[in-house]
Amino acid sequence: MATLKLYELAGADPARLLSPYCWRVRFALAAKGLEAETIVWRMTERDRIAAHGAQKVPVLLHGERAVAESFGIAEYLEDTFPDRPSLFGGAGGRALARFVNGWAEATLMAGLARLIIADIPKVLTPEDAAYFRATREPRFGMALERVQEDRETKVEAFRQAIHPLRMTLRSQPFLGGDAPLQADAIAFGPFQWARVTSPFRPLAPDDPVEAWRQRMLDLHDGMARRVPAFYD
Amino acid sequence: MATLKLYELAGADPARLLSPYCWRVRFALAAKGLEAETIVWRMTERDRIAAHGAQKVPVLLHGERAVAESFGIAEYLEDTFPDRPSLFGGAGGRALARFVNGWAEATLMAGLARLIIADIPKVLTPEDAAYFRATREPRFGMALERVQEDRETKVEAFRQAIHPLRMTLRSQPFLGGDAPLQADAIAFGPFQWARVTSPFRPLAPDDPVEAWRQRMLDLHDGMARRVPAFYD
Repeated sequence: MATLKLYELAGADPARLLSPYCWRVRFALAAKGLEAETIVWRMTERDRIAAHGAQKVPVLLHGERAVAESFGIAEYLEDTFPDRPSLFGGAGGRALARFVNGWAEATLMAGLARLIIADIPKVLTPEDAAYFRATREPRFGMALERVQEDRETKVEAFRQAIHPLRMTLRSQPFLGGDAPLQADAIAFGPFQWARVTSPFRPLAPDDPVEAWRQRMLDLHDGMARRVPAFYD
Repeated sequence: MATLKLYELAGADPARLLSPYCWRVRFALAAKGLEAETIVWRMTERDRIAAHGAQKVPVLLHGERAVAESFGIAEYLEDTFPDRPSLFGGAGGRALARFVNGWAEATLMAGLARLIIADIPKVLTPEDAAYFRATREPRFGMALERVQEDRETKVEAFRQAIHPLRMTLRSQPFLGGDAPLQADAIAFGPFQWARVTSPFRPLAPDDPVEAWRQRMLDLHDGMARRVPAFYD
């Protein structure tokens, strides 16, 4: 089989893999039983992935082929390795995973950003930290510290916003049902991003979403638990 | 085959079938190619369904058996008629349809209620209108008219909240992918409830969600379009 390599965003510590999108791909690879070498990448190293036609990570190299964007990579793996365990559980699961992907972007990523974004530069290389601040502050129209101000209060709105996830996890252990699917990795990625970059805990200890997050950390021999992080 | 009958909530006009949950079941039946007689029901007729162990509609009678709750009925139909077109598109699609169900409850039903709830009593029987107001106003802690006050402004927050649906429908015509699945019916039900009970339009004409809503109205020979409503 052609070699698999994955460009993954790291902090100053190259073991601190922090991209929620790269984590989704790591879970897809693990679910398919595939090994892929990590190519540590930093935000200010655009040139290194531009050669593959990409502007952001994840970028998966499969032999001569480069595939970008986490959902597209999961679909590529599903279609390229159809005899291995399914990432989507059928055509309906693949279609609805796109909805989970959109929900995770609008609700989880946007919601968590407002709780942790000023902590992120602290774990990046100096170059990436400056780049991160310079690109994100104009988007928010304010200092990163302002964005996450009053997070002890704002966390309640986040917990309310993720109620659909909680409702589902009350009736089944994973979004995918009795066993995880890529939809679980899609929703887990943002929570992994948060624990790897910030000490602030977005979930209450007794939240069913927290219990699911722990189950996700346990998957694949604790793959996601082993990375440097602020809490389990 | 044993006869199918469905208890469905109607307004003062027995043709004005308005329950979002009953509409989900109507779509599930149509997707399976099944006919079911409508038993018109009103909110104040609790005794009529209590005999079937239910407190709310939909209640599906299949011969001697009664099945309640829209998601449970869809699962019952999927499992009872496995050789007919699938409502879920596989195990993954069934699991994730539960997430769509939770999202629709928290985001669509709750969001639309704040835009239309004071209009609902106007289409109900006098008995149901009084019952509806007496049971809903304590939940909101205010008059129904207060709940939907400033809806011309509040509709923007609703349109923002449904962005995950919009994102998905930008990349595929239905939540289910190229063809609709029960997840589409789950998300459509609340919009059908809104158009049957209120003249207020929650979607902008150029919204991809509006285009999808029209596709849903076209399904099964315009089944959902034919009911009395305030707009198409």
